[in-house]
Amino acid sequence: MSTATQNIVVNKVEKSKIDQVDFSNLAFGSIFSDHMLVCNFKNGEWQAPTIEPYAPIQLDPAAKIFHYGQSIFEGMKAYKDEKGSTLLFRPKDNWIRLNKSAERMVIPEIPEAIFMDGLTKLLDVDGDWIPTNEGSSLYIRPFMFASGNGFHASPADEYKFVICTAPSGAYFSGKVKVLIEEKYARAANGGVGYAKAGGNYAAQFYPTQLAIDRGYNQVIWTDDNTHEYIEEAGAMNIFVRIGDTLLTSPTSDRILDGITRKSIIQIAKDAGIEVKERKVTVAEVVAAAKSGDLKEMFGAGTAAVISPIAGFGYKNEDFDLPELENPYAAQLKKTITDIQTNKSEDPYGWRFEVK
Amino acid sequence: MSTATQNIVVNKVEKSKIDQVDFSNLAFGSIFSDHMLVCNFKNGEWQAPTIEPYAPIQLDPAAKIFHYGQSIFEGMKAYKDEKGSTLLFRPKDNWIRLNKSAERMVIPEIPEAIFMDGLTKLLDVDGDWIPTNEGSSLYIRPFMFASGNGFHASPADEYKFVICTAPSGAYFSGKVKVLIEEKYARAANGGVGYAKAGGNYAAQFYPTQLAIDRGYNQVIWTDDNTHEYIEEAGAMNIFVRIGDTLLTSPTSDRILDGITRKSIIQIAKDAGIEVKERKVTVAEVVAAAKSGDLKEMFGAGTAAVISPIAGFGYKNEDFDLPELENPYAAQLKKTITDIQTNKSEDPYGWRFEVK
Ligand SMILES: Cc1ncc(COP(=O)(O)O)c(C=O)c1O
Ligand SMILES: Cc1ncc(COP(=O)(O)O)c(C=O)c1O
Repeated sequence: MSTATQNIVVNKVEKSKIDQVDFSNLAFGSIFSDHMLVCNFKNGEWQAPTIEPYAPIQLDPAAKIFHYGQSIFEGMKAYKDEKGSTLLFRPKDNWIRLNKSAERMVIPEIPEAIFMDGLTKLLDVDGDWIPTNEGSSLYIRPFMFASGNGFHASPADEYKFVICTAPSGAYFSGKVKVLIEEKYARAANGGVGYAKAGGNYAAQFYPTQLAIDRGYNQVIWTDDNTHEYIEEAGAMNIFVRIGDTLLTSPTSDRILDGITRKSIIQIAKDAGIEVKERKVTVAEVVAAAKSGDLKEMFGAGTAAVISPIAGFGYKNEDFDLPELENPYAAQLKKTITDIQTNKSEDPYGWRFEVK
Repeated sequence: MSTATQNIVVNKVEKSKIDQVDFSNLAFGSIFSDHMLVCNFKNGEWQAPTIEPYAPIQLDPAAKIFHYGQSIFEGMKAYKDEKGSTLLFRPKDNWIRLNKSAERMVIPEIPEAIFMDGLTKLLDVDGDWIPTNEGSSLYIRPFMFASGNGFHASPADEYKFVICTAPSGAYFSGKVKVLIEEKYARAANGGVGYAKAGGNYAAQFYPTQLAIDRGYNQVIWTDDNTHEYIEEAGAMNIFVRIGDTLLTSPTSDRILDGITRKSIIQIAKDAGIEVKERKVTVAEVVAAAKSGDLKEMFGAGTAAVISPIAGFGYKNEDFDLPELENPYAAQLKKTITDIQTNKSEDPYGWRFEVK
């Protein structure tokens, strides 16, 4: 992959929309910054990326994105520290994962230089859109999809890579209650669950809606064959604390290899917490809930950061989690967000300053 | 569902592109007719459909189709008989299945009147695009997708329903060789395999490419758990003839309930062929291939009609199918296409004349 710096043409908006935004009261991902990065793949190669005003994309009605779901994405966040520097968290890992998703969905891989230089240039142009109040950030959405057309069910010959950004508040508002799934499934063995493929997300909407109708916020997915193992949530990996041990499922071809997940595992271990990556059964979680050994459950993901789970449902029974004095979730969240926002040292080299 | 006839506004093209089309030499789904039907869902309801010149669709970069794969489709064909009447095949079944897919993907269901009147009006406007030479037809692609925007992973609030058409030749050219899959999978138990959801198709591209690289045209999917059962192919259900019995897998939440499949089952039974809908194991197919009892395999689907399979690969072994004098595949294909094109009586009431 070429790492040559890209000389990116920037077409600026005539007038910024930033005055219309109430930065003290942001929802998640519903207001979009002035510009976007666009890069087209055609004639077998990626063309020069450009930064353009955020505006509608025009697509042929037979573009394969509409018909065959050939699309992938990433999710990242930018922060500003007290000196006004723009910070990212492990951005190269998002680039690597995007290309893993690309391989699985037969989308051409994006060169590192287009991804990284496009991203940093876009953040340079729209740096003022990064919220600075606690708990807010600029959510960054790189995505790629099939723009080439045809009704033959085969990969397209043209693609678009786009990065948009959205100043955002918290993903979940309030306490998170989850339902452990016993009927529906998110991913097949040998399927695309480990890829951030668009279709994986729409597939979750219906079971999630059923859970919401029953008073939960999220589904915890289990394996599609036995429903005996806890896998992950809609957009978060899942950690379970039994006694003083933190458990999380190993990643697999059904589970997204979360960047927050692996960072949390590292941070927790370095804080002296025992962490086990092993299969977690629903049965042991239920038994621990009943015996009082289940201390915490939380989700970990870029959008949701660390989201403590207040309770879970399983087969018509509801279980509450205790409210601890100093839970792992809060400790770990503080450590990771302090690193992300430059409030602490970064012994791991995860923070990335945009220059 | 309202069945009131829709009064559909038609905005015609200034100049038809039909002169540029070589109808004697059509590929599959790569040339598009002059018009398309468009209907928008917003403010909680479907708006009035219109017929418009085939032209690019404009979408916000944050439209959920790009990010979360919330899209479904159907595939149908129109034929002209010798009197010049436009004929469809069981179109209401496509409408019903589209709405089943819609329910699973949390897309609002489309009323019968919009689907049927939109379809017939579009065929009225673009009737000249229906090819009349043997083996060609007008392929019809109704599709629905999330046009509403936002990065929250939840259903959109706006959708588009579109119907495009494409004069098309055969889906497969030449003999079809298939690979029985032993690693990858198309669908999870409790997943969306039974829906015509876009993401199901992109998920097949990578394993299919691996099969193509090994000299096959298609993958035959097996269950994701054991890979012991034959399920279906990329866009076709699969029939296997062992001795004089025709076998096909029952439909399930992993398998599309094909309209061609169920029609073939009916036609075959009425022709005195023994048909069994039961699980078909890879082991029995391989054993039958070895013993000589395996007489035929074929795929059945709207695009591929009935596609005889000339051979299959499994675990580094290749098996050829015999060339029979008067195979079921040819008999059944003749019966179904004669019904479709009004070359024979239609005892089932499947043919639908567009007036
Ligand atoms: C299915 C799924 N699991 C887990 C995660 C968490 O991954 P990360 O921590 O890299 O954001 C995400 C979100 O990106 C996701 O979509
Ligand atoms: C996955 C899949 N299986 C089977 C079929 C065959 O269904 P039908 O006969 O209704 O076209 C299709 C095509 O529509 C399909 O996409």
